[in-house]
Amino acid sequence: MSGSSFGSIFKVSTFGESHGKDLGVVIDGCPPGISLTEDDIQPELDRRKPGQSSITTPRKESDVIHIRSGVYEGKTTGTPILLIAHNKDSKSEDYDHLVDNLRPSHADYTYIQKYGLRDHRGSGRASARETLARVAAGAIAKKYLRERLNVEFLAYVEQVGDIVTAVDMDTVTLADVESNIVRCPCSRTAKLMEARITEVLKAKDSIGGIVRGLIRNLPGGLGEPVFDKLHAELGKAMLSINAVKGFDIGAGFNCVNMLGSEHNDPYYLKDGEIRTKRNHSGGVIGGISSGETIYFRTAFKPVSTIGVPQQTVDLTNRKETTLAAHGRHDPCVLPRAVPIVEAMSALVIMDMYLRQRARLG
Amino acid sequence: MSGSSFGSIFKVSTFGESHGKDLGVVIDGCPPGISLTEDDIQPELDRRKPGQSSITTPRKESDVIHIRSGVYEGKTTGTPILLIAHNKDSKSEDYDHLVDNLRPSHADYTYIQKYGLRDHRGSGRASARETLARVAAGAIAKKYLRERLNVEFLAYVEQVGDIVTAVDMDTVTLADVESNIVRCPCSRTAKLMEARITEVLKAKDSIGGIVRGLIRNLPGGLGEPVFDKLHAELGKAMLSINAVKGFDIGAGFNCVNMLGSEHNDPYYLKDGEIRTKRNHSGGVIGGISSGETIYFRTAFKPVSTIGVPQQTVDLTNRKETTLAAHGRHDPCVLPRAVPIVEAMSALVIMDMYLRQRARLG
Amino acid sequence: MSGSSFGSIFKVSTFGESHGKDLGVVIDGCPPGISLTEDDIQPELDRRKPGQSSITTPRKESDVIHIRSGVYEGKTTGTPILLIAHNKDSKSEDYDHLVDNLRPSHADYTYIQKYGLRDHRGSGRASARETLARVAAGAIAKKYLRERLNVEFLAYVEQVGDIVTAVDMDTVTLADVESNIVRCPCSRTAKLMEARITEVLKAKDSIGGIVRGLIRNLPGGLGEPVFDKLHAELGKAMLSINAVKGFDIGAGFNCVNMLGSEHNDPYYLKDGEIRTKRNHSGGVIGGISSGETIYFRTAFKPVSTIGVPQQTVDLTNRKETTLAAHGRHDPCVLPRAVPIVEAMSALVIMDMYLRQRARLG
Amino acid sequence: MSGSSFGSIFKVSTFGESHGKDLGVVIDGCPPGISLTEDDIQPELDRRKPGQSSITTPRKESDVIHIRSGVYEGKTTGTPILLIAHNKDSKSEDYDHLVDNLRPSHADYTYIQKYGLRDHRGSGRASARETLARVAAGAIAKKYLRERLNVEFLAYVEQVGDIVTAVDMDTVTLADVESNIVRCPCSRTAKLMEARITEVLKAKDSIGGIVRGLIRNLPGGLGEPVFDKLHAELGKAMLSINAVKGFDIGAGFNCVNMLGSEHNDPYYLKDGEIRTKRNHSGGVIGGISSGETIYFRTAFKPVSTIGVPQQTVDLTNRKETTLAAHGRHDPCVLPRAVPIVEAMSALVIMDMYLRQRARLG
Repeated sequence: MSGSSFGSIFKVSTFGESHGKDLGVVIDGCPPGISLTEDDIQPELDRRKPGQSSITTPRKESDVIHIRSGVYEGKTTGTPILLIAHNKDSKSEDYDHLVDNLRPSHADYTYIQKYGLRDHRGSGRASARETLARVAAGAIAKKYLRERLNVEFLAYVEQVGDIVTAVDMDTVTLADVESNIVRCPCSRTAKLMEARITEVLKAKDSIGGIVRGLIRNLPGGLGEPVFDKLHAELGKAMLSINAVKGFDIGAGFNCVNMLGSEHNDPYYLKDGEIRTKRNHSGGVIGGISSGETIYFRTAFKPVSTIGVPQQTVDLTNRKETTLAAHGRHDPCVLPRAVPIVEAMSALVIMDMYLRQRARLG
Repeated sequence: MSGSSFGSIFKVSTFGESHGKDLGVVIDGCPPGISLTEDDIQPELDRRKPGQSSITTPRKESDVIHIRSGVYEGKTTGTPILLIAHNKDSKSEDYDHLVDNLRPSHADYTYIQKYGLRDHRGSGRASARETLARVAAGAIAKKYLRERLNVEFLAYVEQVGDIVTAVDMDTVTLADVESNIVRCPCSRTAKLMEARITEVLKAKDSIGGIVRGLIRNLPGGLGEPVFDKLHAELGKAMLSINAVKGFDIGAGFNCVNMLGSEHNDPYYLKDGEIRTKRNHSGGVIGGISSGETIYFRTAFKPVSTIGVPQQTVDLTNRKETTLAAHGRHDPCVLPRAVPIVEAMSALVIMDMYLRQRARLG
Repeated sequence: MSGSSFGSIFKVSTFGESHGKDLGVVIDGCPPGISLTEDDIQPELDRRKPGQSSITTPRKESDVIHIRSGVYEGKTTGTPILLIAHNKDSKSEDYDHLVDNLRPSHADYTYIQKYGLRDHRGSGRASARETLARVAAGAIAKKYLRERLNVEFLAYVEQVGDIVTAVDMDTVTLADVESNIVRCPCSRTAKLMEARITEVLKAKDSIGGIVRGLIRNLPGGLGEPVFDKLHAELGKAMLSINAVKGFDIGAGFNCVNMLGSEHNDPYYLKDGEIRTKRNHSGGVIGGISSGETIYFRTAFKPVSTIGVPQQTVDLTNRKETTLAAHGRHDPCVLPRAVPIVEAMSALVIMDMYLRQRARLG
Repeated sequence: MSGSSFGSIFKVSTFGESHGKDLGVVIDGCPPGISLTEDDIQPELDRRKPGQSSITTPRKESDVIHIRSGVYEGKTTGTPILLIAHNKDSKSEDYDHLVDNLRPSHADYTYIQKYGLRDHRGSGRASARETLARVAAGAIAKKYLRERLNVEFLAYVEQVGDIVTAVDMDTVTLADVESNIVRCPCSRTAKLMEARITEVLKAKDSIGGIVRGLIRNLPGGLGEPVFDKLHAELGKAMLSINAVKGFDIGAGFNCVNMLGSEHNDPYYLKDGEIRTKRNHSGGVIGGISSGETIYFRTAFKPVSTIGVPQQTVDLTNRKETTLAAHGRHDPCVLPRAVPIVEAMSALVIMDMYLRQRARLG
């Protein structure tokens, strides 16, 4: 109802502000008997954390996760799992100059329109720091689905500004993605992207791009027809990530200019199994997984907090003014967004899998 | 849980198969005291119904809506509203040749993967005929929001194949949209689109396109931060419409190639009110409405059922075969999709409005 | 949210007013592949319908149920099932004298307090006629659980006024319950109860009583700890039935005067299986089924609509007045409430069963 | 879905095991702008905490609550509120002898039936220590409803074993309730109860009783008809409290032996306002609040953990054995249950109030 929960059976509820005391997540509905320690979660958080490279924000945040309930003697008990990170490096003074001056295209003003007040420190709940909790929860879903069903979630940076790469979605590996700080699996393109981001950083500006998401080895039959179609839930999940403004699946926006005879994926028999010859559908037909690889794109806008002076309004004094943020921000959020896209994919699939399991006995 | 409901307070639950007996919707959570008759709903259904022009399917379906509960002496009572349409023209024999042969990129096979069986008549629940129920429910939301808040929902066909129009989103009217059978507000482009669709129809093929959606006069402050962001719910709503494969809001996929300084929408004071100078954000910032016009795109694939022969698999006999559908289908679903996009937008906003109202007392 | 839905996976949404056009239920989340026809449902409705004996209201209502979606070739498809009854005998004039005069302890006035208006015909949505829809939905749950797990739901009239029966909860059968019009399995007590009800009927008054509910052969492990305990959901289900004012499980209110050493149910081994020597817990421990028989009581107040003159207020003219209802009402709702108690039990267990199934893979 | 959440708009999700690391609650959906500090919550927890008197368990638990998110500069922000208590005095060794031997009528065995494993320390999640989180959340609801609507929640011990008190429900005060360690507002009866509990304590046994709950000054119109009736939700809330086995409202089980003409509450005009002459309905008619005082009873069984030797089964060795618990437990939970009953009442009403507010604009 108030938007901080995701999922219907594997239910994830996040809490905490960027510069508050604690930030984390309660997971209710995790199956019992899964072996789980912090070591299953922390590596995913380390892929998301700030300060990991020359092209991410130098902010130092405490991204150490603690399991505080729901696990006993190394196994999930089936009861709510509390994952928590304690905030430490809260340089709220960095944001003091923002109290009055609304940051263009940031949630400062819409929060006030909604709630009548806001926690301005580090953008409070609107900060992408909230995604730490999602990545932590997603790590459990990823582990479960990998161990039970061999499902693999993989995302990578496909485009930064106008620099695009084309990658073979069947063969690309996590090692390819992690081979460079941009998380673009083509090292040559990654170099170009890195140069571009560095240039934008120097100009105190920011730049957008596209993250490609893959879900491989997913069985057919998952997803609920009508409103909760698999790709509708995936789309919602991606659009809920900070700075995402677009989503498409399979041929996506490109299918607009195809004929049905070009777009349709013909069925054939492969070793007695029904498969499709191509996969313009992106692994989802009628809102239900087909057994083919799911692939989708998420469009990230350039992050709104920049050092370039911008025209805005001083809220307290109700007059126009100029703002130049001097916080420590990412010039391009995409390298750090990759594990978030994977985590949200895993949360969607985990929930759909449990929903399907309830149905068939 | 099973995907046939939408909304948390204004809760819409659809039922019925394409060629079943009844098709309709129960709306639970509609505020009491709204004046409502079938005449408030039927005109929207007429915009969606088949057989309305030379470029839509000639199928004759009974799209007459009946209010069967929840309204007393012309007013909603606050209790569940049942809207129902009785099916009549169920030429199921048209589909008999499809029982065995899986239609490429249609939900035939994924339904079997999911449920182990399916209602093959007119595609059962996977048929776009289900959207009749959404349009009916959406008509109530549209009426309520128009009368209470003066919110306006407007959609139109922006692209068919590679034919694109550019329309002034501030001045385009419903009359412009309804001025031609394509529902493209630019009559010159509409002619080109109509010719293209007619050509595709003759070739027994199908073609995709883009529907633009607008929400005007929406107050700021609606939408729930974190998972249920306004544009995330809108995206889910659009992606849940049959044949939709992509969604973006504001500058959307185009923002990828912008710098933050180009993309951000500077604030200024307009007659003492805080407004933005441009609207790359598309009326939503941080998942919350800003008070500016919401605009978004939905990408429709070419509809999967075509007359062109296609390779597929005969499910019963488990062998490869060729299929040429001879049902009566739309060469291009976009003209009929326009009221569906409006209806789903209205359902999203209605629910967000009631959620916000619960919060503030 | 608006109270007309029950269940989280096997989701039941009822609609329709007592004297409206249609009354029924949509069931979303029913597993696919269950054989189902109207004949599986109608017999349960006939146990609930008015006019079935000399001690029930002589009203003739059309309680014929129609399956209108979600079933294909005699099997559930996994998509929403619409069950509908068309109202016919709507003698609304019987209620015209009630428009102004508020019936004491009836929902007339509280509906106005809530909604600002009401459908006064036959009490609209507040009428127990709504339970027709629950009994219809419950019939499907009963059938499924009986066929899959051999679970048996049985209820009977245990008390009318001060006339109480004691029945062996392990051996009582449906045939015993149905052997007389009171639905009290002890025929001797039933005679006394019938005489008492007839006497009350002549006095134009009404009388309350207790329905006992049993759930036999239920496996252990169902029910969700903490808020959604099995007996908490059962209690809610029973208290949601019109005229129910109390619920207890196992020793219930009688446990108040027991010591722990008297109340606790010792474990022992029966053919290697862990069982309890007695069952004061009523088959639920810590909110989870133990594998022992569940037994509970529901207290029904005397129905509020009576022919005896009562003091009340004329709403329109805002003055005190006297009311003597002359509609056709039950002097004692318990005989007809028996199938409702069974149906609600089955809905609770069905949902708990599917919830548990989602958890364990 | 997994039972650890309560409420639909004011959503409360508890987590944590009795002897785990942390225990607490996330509240999502709290209106913004409420002034809130730990001092608003701690006093309620102190009424619940163990060791507060000679008749409660001498266990020392850390019941210090911390607000860790959702509050900024002393005001709620409208975002999730995390309330947490860190566990300290975890004498798990007290429970080591219980690992194998199932406690009769305790949730040990049903948890294993459900999850296949369990956290046996202090009963893990089945412990009444979980209610600490409920009392904390309820304190916020109480404060809000008191400040906004002047609603008062009051509970007291009405019966212990066969010792019953009769209290004037209109005039009894919190001071009366808190005037003795039993929390029975009649000091003479309280003395008898205290003596009885002390006697039971010496016998290493336990005893049950009844807590009466009152909700005063509640406006009419709250509660959702049909399934989510106000008293159905109250009943569920009470039955979800550890050891509660029965619930009734108004005349409750006593209404069984009344005629309608005796039970019905006649309407009259009091200073122009429509009121009832008596209140057998207990302030709820048709599931909706009437504006009269709500009063209800909750029946608590004698707590299952006792020192008296009991027959049971050794789970590991699968043989019958005898168990005498030597943990530190309450002989009678009722004095500490009083604030829990109040808290759960407040959570029900808070949610119903926000649900109603969403409806009317």
